Amino acid sequence: MPLVEIHMLQGKPIEFRRRVGEIVYETMVDTIKVPPRDNFQIITEHDENGLIYDPEYLDIQRTDEIIIIQITLNEGRTVKLKKAFYKRLTERLQSLLGIRVEDVFISLVEVKKENWSFGNGVAQYAK
Amino acid sequence: MPLVEIHMLQGKPIEFRRRVGEIVYETMVDTIKVPPRDNFQIITEHDENGLIYDPEYLDIQRTDEIIIIQITLNEGRTVKLKKAFYKRLTERLQSLLGIRVEDVFISLVEVKKENWSFGNGVAQYAK
Amino acid sequence: MPLVEIHMLQGKPIEFRRRVGEIVYETMVDTIKVPPRDNFQIITEHDENGLIYDPEYLDIQRTDEIIIIQITLNEGRTVKLKKAFYKRLTERLQSLLGIRVEDVFISLVEVKKENWSFGNGVAQYAK
Repeated sequence: MPLVEIHMLQGKPIEFRRRVGEIVYETMVDTIKVPPRDNFQIITEHDENGLIYDPEYLDIQRTDEIIIIQITLNEGRTVKLKKAFYKRLTERLQSLLGIRVEDVFISLVEVKKENWSFGNGVAQYAK
Repeated sequence: MPLVEIHMLQGKPIEFRRRVGEIVYETMVDTIKVPPRDNFQIITEHDENGLIYDPEYLDIQRTDEIIIIQITLNEGRTVKLKKAFYKRLTERLQSLLGIRVEDVFISLVEVKKENWSFGNGVAQYAK
Repeated sequence: MPLVEIHMLQGKPIEFRRRVGEIVYETMVDTIKVPPRDNFQIITEHDENGLIYDPEYLDIQRTDEIIIIQITLNEGRTVKLKKAFYKRLTERLQSLLGIRVEDVFISLVEVKKENWSFGNGVAQYAK
């Protein structure tokens, strides 16, 4: 269900890109009850004119290592759960890949259960 | 109104890409009352590191022919209508382009009517 | 907070691309109370097969100069404010960059305050 879009500046090894995606997926399963195997992602690299960020907004010092993660997922998770997800995901990206915690930007877009079809033309999550 | 984003792996003929977009558009008009000519799409190709999918989630066997379709559209369509849309779109992609039904992934994001401007700086759908 | 995605056809100078992004940002600050420095954008160029638009929908004459702007932002802005934003953004893109008002397409996606983390793994806007 979640459709994950990850944006970063170009120049990273392919393996780095893949690991970012895997860590996002694993953390969704661990923390916000995304079903195992529910892993669909678009990972895009941009040149410096294609990814714009403010290096100081909210007094957070960002760098060109910034990772912008936008996740479309089902509505209904609590604020507490979302907070746990941001914390855990950011910690894991830091500890496993060395990404600075200041450089992890996350945006969630919530939708209804019936807004997905995973194949076969069926709305698998609709009641 | 709908803004359609279509993602697929690279290597398909240009004509294939365009036909996928046309079939999505035609099916929106036929099935979920999108006005004729309301056709705005971004179609993107990715390499194998840029489009990640699970080949078995929900016991659906996906391949590299997967097409991920995300549509931003006005809220208010019924579950029944959404189901009819998934079914019809998947069937048409199969019958007209030979895309396996297992390889059609659809995600809808719903917004309010006043969230669009189609040009001229006006919110054409707002009351 | 807003995450802005801008799509245009390829071939524009880099400076043009950057100015479009800057004008979108400045107009969000001026018109819809986006905090200064809250500037995060993805700007993408597409070939003619990757960006599809109808040249006449709603009797608006669009050209290959079309700019498609999708903004994910917090919910709660009034219809009046959204209308003011569309008008002002379109006017400024015209007066400052010579973009035809017919070629400015805007789509807003609204989310909850707690749906953002701007770094450090914290939901900065959550209560």
